[in-house]
Amino acid sequence: MNFNMKEAIEILERTPQTLEYFLSGLSCGWLICNEGEGTWNISEVIEHLIEGEKSNWIPRLEFIVKQGETNPFPPFDRFSHLDKKSEGSINQRLLEFKAIRKQNITKVENLVDSKLHLEYTGLHPVFGAVKLRELLSTWVVHDLTHIAQIIRVMAERYRTDVGPWNEYLGIFKK
Amino acid sequence: MNFNMKEAIEILERTPQTLEYFLSGLSCGWLICNEGEGTWNISEVIEHLIEGEKSNWIPRLEFIVKQGETNPFPPFDRFSHLDKKSEGSINQRLLEFKAIRKQNITKVENLVDSKLHLEYTGLHPVFGAVKLRELLSTWVVHDLTHIAQIIRVMAERYRTDVGPWNEYLGIFKK
Repeated sequence: MNFNMKEAIEILERTPQTLEYFLSGLSCGWLICNEGEGTWNISEVIEHLIEGEKSNWIPRLEFIVKQGETNPFPPFDRFSHLDKKSEGSINQRLLEFKAIRKQNITKVENLVDSKLHLEYTGLHPVFGAVKLRELLSTWVVHDLTHIAQIIRVMAERYRTDVGPWNEYLGIFKK
Repeated sequence: MNFNMKEAIEILERTPQTLEYFLSGLSCGWLICNEGEGTWNISEVIEHLIEGEKSNWIPRLEFIVKQGETNPFPPFDRFSHLDKKSEGSINQRLLEFKAIRKQNITKVENLVDSKLHLEYTGLHPVFGAVKLRELLSTWVVHDLTHIAQIIRVMAERYRTDVGPWNEYLGIFKK
């Protein structure tokens, strides 16, 4: 096991500002591109991250600490942000993500005692029993997955522009 | 073609500081991990980026503008940084990358007239004729490739920690 609470929070607290730094002020061409039909653009990825802050991570952590395995988690719809009409600029969404993540880190720090709760379990609607430390690890890797997705979506925009170098660039191999 | 000079430079100028923001102050566990035997850790990725700034992008751009296809580019050893003994902390390397990238962006802006030079060609030792705009596009995607690599290496560390969520996390599918 590599997980520890302090190191996990190091990533969680860096993600919003890293994205804000990388994406703020970029030309529209970088922000509206996606990987083709049915894939998300950068705005949609940020909306999905915000949705997770609201409906997924904290509610489930609270569920584990307070209810254990008495009831399964309410399911989380990973695509719910796509039904909502997007409002505001990407900068506004990045600020919203930064604010809610900051609040949520405080909530986690108040809720979870890493000497006491990490092995606590809850009931995932599909997987069955899951540990609190697995949920926290997943939150971290979920951040990393979506940072990597944003980077990959941006690279895709130059797939043909790089000409013959295409074959040297690992990011195009998927 | 999606490439344009201004948008390409937007990415080139953001990469070092984005990495600096994301990586500075991280616990050692995040910084020394790799994806197994023969793969790079984060320090080695940053060294490779610095090596590219010194020996690859600017020399080749100058070659195209000044010599055209009269001679092939000198080859660039993508693994040369692995022969050098690493010195200094990752923070020092990030600062070095930031400084040399800043100088190189100034050099590009002085060297390349985007109304004049983008279709200029040089002779790649393997690919043959390549265009200046393809080299610039590749520089951008090369940044994105290595940011994605760093993110993937970090995620790998929690591959088993996430428990059953493993199958939902795209970053583990490679």
